[in-house]
Amino acid sequence: MADRNRRLVLAERPSGMVDEQTVRVEESDVPQPGPGEALARVRYLSIDPTIRTWMDDVQGYLPPIALDEVVRGAGVAEVLESNAEQYRPGDLLFGFTGWQDYVLASEATGYQALPKGVSATLALNLFGVTGMTAYFGLIDVGQMQEGDVVVVSGAAGATGSTVGQIAKIKGAGKVIGIAGGERKCSWIADELGFDATIDYKSENVAARLRELAPDGIDLYFDNVGGEILDACLGQLALRGRIVLCGAISGYNDRASARGPVNYSNLITKRGRMQGFIILDYLDRFPEAQADIAGWLSTGEIKSAEHIVAGLENAPEALNLLFTGGNTGKVIVEV
Amino acid sequence: MADRNRRLVLAERPSGMVDEQTVRVEESDVPQPGPGEALARVRYLSIDPTIRTWMDDVQGYLPPIALDEVVRGAGVAEVLESNAEQYRPGDLLFGFTGWQDYVLASEATGYQALPKGVSATLALNLFGVTGMTAYFGLIDVGQMQEGDVVVVSGAAGATGSTVGQIAKIKGAGKVIGIAGGERKCSWIADELGFDATIDYKSENVAARLRELAPDGIDLYFDNVGGEILDACLGQLALRGRIVLCGAISGYNDRASARGPVNYSNLITKRGRMQGFIILDYLDRFPEAQADIAGWLSTGEIKSAEHIVAGLENAPEALNLLFTGGNTGKVIVEV
Repeated sequence: MADRNRRLVLAERPSGMVDEQTVRVEESDVPQPGPGEALARVRYLSIDPTIRTWMDDVQGYLPPIALDEVVRGAGVAEVLESNAEQYRPGDLLFGFTGWQDYVLASEATGYQALPKGVSATLALNLFGVTGMTAYFGLIDVGQMQEGDVVVVSGAAGATGSTVGQIAKIKGAGKVIGIAGGERKCSWIADELGFDATIDYKSENVAARLRELAPDGIDLYFDNVGGEILDACLGQLALRGRIVLCGAISGYNDRASARGPVNYSNLITKRGRMQGFIILDYLDRFPEAQADIAGWLSTGEIKSAEHIVAGLENAPEALNLLFTGGNTGKVIVEV
Repeated sequence: MADRNRRLVLAERPSGMVDEQTVRVEESDVPQPGPGEALARVRYLSIDPTIRTWMDDVQGYLPPIALDEVVRGAGVAEVLESNAEQYRPGDLLFGFTGWQDYVLASEATGYQALPKGVSATLALNLFGVTGMTAYFGLIDVGQMQEGDVVVVSGAAGATGSTVGQIAKIKGAGKVIGIAGGERKCSWIADELGFDATIDYKSENVAARLRELAPDGIDLYFDNVGGEILDACLGQLALRGRIVLCGAISGYNDRASARGPVNYSNLITKRGRMQGFIILDYLDRFPEAQADIAGWLSTGEIKSAEHIVAGLENAPEALNLLFTGGNTGKVIVEV
């Protein structure tokens, strides 16, 4: 056990990408568990685009991270010592650990034990918020139907790569992934079974969508916003649905974020554009997790993980999501 | 009976507002009804924003009006002479008469007889596409609930003025109308019973929405698009719904139309933005018409009409919709 607890706190609000000024490493004593508490070592951190939004001084679905507060984020921690009946040394716990080495777990912190047989990284990816977002966004918000032409952006990212796989499993007529670069496009086609890909860095997205989805897009799962959302709106099928999961293209630059001018196509096409927050689905996670467990056991779905070593590299890991440096779920191994 | 049929044909596609070059008056002989046909004199024309969109060379929910073709539009015509059993002189027919003096009615043209007791102008307003759009947009697409804070733009226009009245009847908690100018705002408040108004020409819409709807907008019925749509997105309540009926602010200037940058609020607020075309509801018109007939009989709803005299003034009447020169439904008395 290290004798110090490293805590990555928000030193100042970033104006664009996270940089060296954004996060400060503080060291404090390892906290001592009181009665009813357990001390747990954070092992893995889930790196999600939404963390960047919490760094802005903007009221969202959760309050912003306060200055000098540990950066908020989900993680998996291992119990080291326990004064609480419900935790035993060796247990793996899941919850908002934040970017630090140690946490105290108690009734109040709401950490949940990982189900038996679920690894820490699976818990943060397919069984965690990422997998749940893909599952409920596609099936519940997007009301995916068999035969649908489904388009997903950020398709080599954690959520996008999962959306595409679930769409295939659920009988989509065609799954088109939009990603940046040839390597990512090959990966989602060859490894994950996407039917077609568009490399937004080298191809004209709108023109390619017209080629690949000549009768229109039935369901577009949007992880990026911006021009790609606009292109998909422009090629929407009759009664097409757009699931708004995130607008990552605007997270680092709210001022120059633009609106989708083709939104008026929603009228002509009787379309629908809907946003959601996965926390609203907490009580339905078990049904999704059961489906995903089944698909994992048959090999129909793969968990794609991009591991970054070292707590101190968490800020850099977050930036990967915006530079497109990752394939699959970014996880920091503390 | 005039001996000539004046036909207003599309001479060239307008680049902004309709002007003197857009429409050409042609005269031809009054058509002679053949077997199974009736000759009818067009009495009233429904002037709707969508007519302007049909003048562009853009494939929408209906094909564009071809050059040299009579301008498409709904109207009411009176049967003068008939070789068809189903039509008798004096009958009033409703359908796409177009901008002309005379039409031939037959099985093929699909004109419908007006129900007994419904005046021609009511047929074009509350019982026609305008009333149906307000009714189904609010109730079916928008899923209005009792107690909802409802905002409607173009509130002194044909659809908007009807939406506000129906929202009140259906138990909205508060109905806020956005219109241009003090006169219109007074009219919708004093005559139509809107709870509050915003004059977008002299007030800051976003700031006023924050004042009038501090807990957010549950349902926004959008007739205009542009900055007002954006302001409403910015003040959306949790699970707020936006009904996209039209984007009149962009119809005369597609090139500089802008997208709503606040669309990403749909994510945070779990909101929904949905478009519709009233033609999809044709088979449900009777249920709406029955409700509206009831509200008319009790005086709960008023039909607000803005009559323009003379077929030759139809282009100018269309422009009224975009200059905001009308209150209520614009109808040309041929």
